[in-house]
Amino acid sequence: MPRSKFRYSCRFFVQDTVIGAGKYDGALGIVTAIAAVKSLNKKGKLFRFPRPIEIIAFSDEEGIRFQSTFLGSAAIAGTLSTQLLSVRDKSGTTLRDSLHQASLKGSEESLLHLKYDKFAVWGYIEVHIEQGPVLEFKKIPLGVVEAIAGQTRLKVTLQGLQGHAGTVPMLMRKDPMPAAAKAILHIEELCTKRGDDNEKASSHIDSTAQLVCTVGEISSWPGASNVIPGQVVFTVDIRSRDDYLREETVLKIESNIHNVARARALSYNIERKHEAKAVKCDSELTHRLKAAAKSGISKFLDSEVSDIPLLTSGAGHDAMAMARLTKVGMIFVRCTGGISHSPAEHVLEDDIGAASSALLSFLEHELDLLDS
Amino acid sequence: MPRSKFRYSCRFFVQDTVIGAGKYDGALGIVTAIAAVKSLNKKGKLFRFPRPIEIIAFSDEEGIRFQSTFLGSAAIAGTLSTQLLSVRDKSGTTLRDSLHQASLKGSEESLLHLKYDKFAVWGYIEVHIEQGPVLEFKKIPLGVVEAIAGQTRLKVTLQGLQGHAGTVPMLMRKDPMPAAAKAILHIEELCTKRGDDNEKASSHIDSTAQLVCTVGEISSWPGASNVIPGQVVFTVDIRSRDDYLREETVLKIESNIHNVARARALSYNIERKHEAKAVKCDSELTHRLKAAAKSGISKFLDSEVSDIPLLTSGAGHDAMAMARLTKVGMIFVRCTGGISHSPAEHVLEDDIGAASSALLSFLEHELDLLDS
Repeated sequence: MPRSKFRYSCRFFVQDTVIGAGKYDGALGIVTAIAAVKSLNKKGKLFRFPRPIEIIAFSDEEGIRFQSTFLGSAAIAGTLSTQLLSVRDKSGTTLRDSLHQASLKGSEESLLHLKYDKFAVWGYIEVHIEQGPVLEFKKIPLGVVEAIAGQTRLKVTLQGLQGHAGTVPMLMRKDPMPAAAKAILHIEELCTKRGDDNEKASSHIDSTAQLVCTVGEISSWPGASNVIPGQVVFTVDIRSRDDYLREETVLKIESNIHNVARARALSYNIERKHEAKAVKCDSELTHRLKAAAKSGISKFLDSEVSDIPLLTSGAGHDAMAMARLTKVGMIFVRCTGGISHSPAEHVLEDDIGAASSALLSFLEHELDLLDS
Repeated sequence: MPRSKFRYSCRFFVQDTVIGAGKYDGALGIVTAIAAVKSLNKKGKLFRFPRPIEIIAFSDEEGIRFQSTFLGSAAIAGTLSTQLLSVRDKSGTTLRDSLHQASLKGSEESLLHLKYDKFAVWGYIEVHIEQGPVLEFKKIPLGVVEAIAGQTRLKVTLQGLQGHAGTVPMLMRKDPMPAAAKAILHIEELCTKRGDDNEKASSHIDSTAQLVCTVGEISSWPGASNVIPGQVVFTVDIRSRDDYLREETVLKIESNIHNVARARALSYNIERKHEAKAVKCDSELTHRLKAAAKSGISKFLDSEVSDIPLLTSGAGHDAMAMARLTKVGMIFVRCTGGISHSPAEHVLEDDIGAASSALLSFLEHELDLLDS
């Protein structure tokens, strides 16, 4: 991004970007913010702001190169460990070296220097593609994020007795495969039952967003079609904006696996590989972003929506790191088929326009509040 | 095996062996047959037989080196394709070359020459370790095989919609993983329900031996803990001595997968990778082997068993190939924990003695029949 007068004259907006991923993920946030601030300037309103507005393109939110998420935003929030400077990428280059190559100091001191002062920051807003199918399903271009889900990642190992697929009668088996199947169905049931409590399909979509569980990886050992497996391993990814509900779900999953294993005389091991708490967006920011999104849609698309959906972000965002520094708010933009991090990622140009228009409305409303 | 007068003077017994597998699998059959014929000779009864007795150690029943099962027995039964002579092992050596190296012709003509004349063979008996846990469970050293199970091997592919584990609500997913879990539980249920019809635990063991199903291999794609899989693939191995029951079970599995996939808007593919019909042992041979096993146990172990179990062999044996040539019968010897093809394979020496004693009883009874 070229240096512009907006960049150093203001401290208000911060946006993320992802290099080498989808077309919109990240870049979309920067573009909408630049366009909004440009409009504000054209209208002669920019310099009426009592506080600076800053647009930042964060690097490596995903943690792809150095296996550590939120590289840019955590540095600014002051939560990035200086030990990370010595971490190497796949080619053997350290983070320190790569900063040197970009003509940056890359010293521990310069890293600590990146940290923003809590009291010098008013708030943080991020615009991002939804990466999910909810807005498309609801036929609404924009949504506002209420919370970013917390996450638990489990690795479950079920151990039985390996045997010949032809010679061991069913009732003499200690096969971990159907036990894994029972556990996987129970995990799905735990999450979908929460949806069944509601009546309408569309509220299913909302309520289930409060809890999602995924078994993404599974393998058996020795893994031959004619051998009863001695071991089955699978992962469970549990996410919810409600930390209590997530923990309760994890305990239910663990307890069910215990019972399934006991009933079949299997041994088991459950390893917690990752644990992250949910982040709540600031309720006032969220409330104002809802109004701004409605106004942005109305102004840019000339259409009215009765209500802007409040969403939970199941994916992590720089806002999670920035929440350690200041209050955060997020706008989600509808994407095709919920697809992201893929060349097939797609967002309508009009929806990008509506998002930028929403940011402009938010800023103008801020000025109105300051004036009144 | 050294040449002996038994080898060429008689054509009656044929036994298999497995090189490089367990300690007893195969070798046990040869040893028990040699010991039985030796005893018969000592008693001066061998040359009273009107037909020759032959003991053959078959090579590569498992098809490990040249990826073709029953290499020796199929040659003798006349069902081995001459094309196999050109098949290469992992080191690139053809079957033809390896026969040359052993000073054998290895020509198509010499292969065809191995075929036995149907009318020159009276029958085939094989002694083998059970490779399963049933005899150990029943505390009986020997069992008689009624049938060798037929087998169907399926490769099931369930195709859904890959997605972000955090952003797609449960009710908007097309996740093939819980669908696979549902299919796997149904497969187990199909087999174990047949056991539940009976009352006693031990008859469970028998009846379930009529149908066993195994999901030995499973994998997901792309196989990451934070990605809803787009695809899950698993294998199903279905075995039964009843070909009709096996086919019925395969159809039920296919129909259930169809329903599960339809209910979840998934696509699926079921590939039949392997199909082999069951082989029935000769009922008269089986009847006589039962009596011989009872007598063998009584004579060698000095203990009485009320009834010799009739078993289904879930594993394949040379008897399957030999059944194309002549009537077949099999004796199973109890093994520890049902373990085979493993260094942990174990058979009690006394049980081997009982098996040999059973063969001797069988031969002596044959003489009695001839005399009467």
